[in-house]
Amino acid sequence: MRDKVTLAEKFAQLPEAYQPAIVGYMNDYKLVVVAIQGEFVWHKHDETDELFLVVKGRLTIQFRDRDVVLEPGELFVVPRGVEHCPKADEDALVVMVEPKGTVNTGDRPGERTAELRELADEV
Amino acid sequence: MRDKVTLAEKFAQLPEAYQPAIVGYMNDYKLVVVAIQGEFVWHKHDETDELFLVVKGRLTIQFRDRDVVLEPGELFVVPRGVEHCPKADEDALVVMVEPKGTVNTGDRPGERTAELRELADEV
Repeated sequence: MRDKVTLAEKFAQLPEAYQPAIVGYMNDYKLVVVAIQGEFVWHKHDETDELFLVVKGRLTIQFRDRDVVLEPGELFVVPRGVEHCPKADEDALVVMVEPKGTVNTGDRPGERTAELRELADEV
Repeated sequence: MRDKVTLAEKFAQLPEAYQPAIVGYMNDYKLVVVAIQGEFVWHKHDETDELFLVVKGRLTIQFRDRDVVLEPGELFVVPRGVEHCPKADEDALVVMVEPKGTVNTGDRPGERTAELRELADEV
């Protein structure tokens, strides 16, 4: 069985913004922590919705027709196939839940495409 | 598209402990908020893992061989097929993620089996 996850400990291990890490698994989903600072890239995931839960800071998820602004304790599910671009003026700490194979840049692979590090602990 | 979810607002709408409510969906999963107070029933889910994230209070997930104690900002994934029994001395506010069809009492239907109310908003 895996150990519990203390989010603050995991966030403290993140090396830099937009370098996500896996902290656990649920069925065929991964639980990811990521620090967001500045603007990411516009992209979409045709195969899956994507859950964002903000733990610290303020995250803006830009859509083509509006912005969704999330404060700590707020979550949003980006529907599959919808173009979006996360941004944060100051460091935002975010938990994401999405299928294991999901690539952070979706349909827009490039220099922001991340290899996820593994921070999930066994007990 | 659904609206963002402010967890504090959803928790405030819960009528009583162990009456979970759906606040959103991600693919074929439901996002659930629940207040936990006292001891639930021992049960397991043979078909799915189950994610618990504590937002307020302290949640103890009892297993047959150990307890896992979660404080705010801590999460745990109960593996499928593993008997567990949540409890909390004072109100614990918890977010859960699990497949849409998951029954709260798993293999132990009874008086604690809940019909989930719907608190997910469209915009």
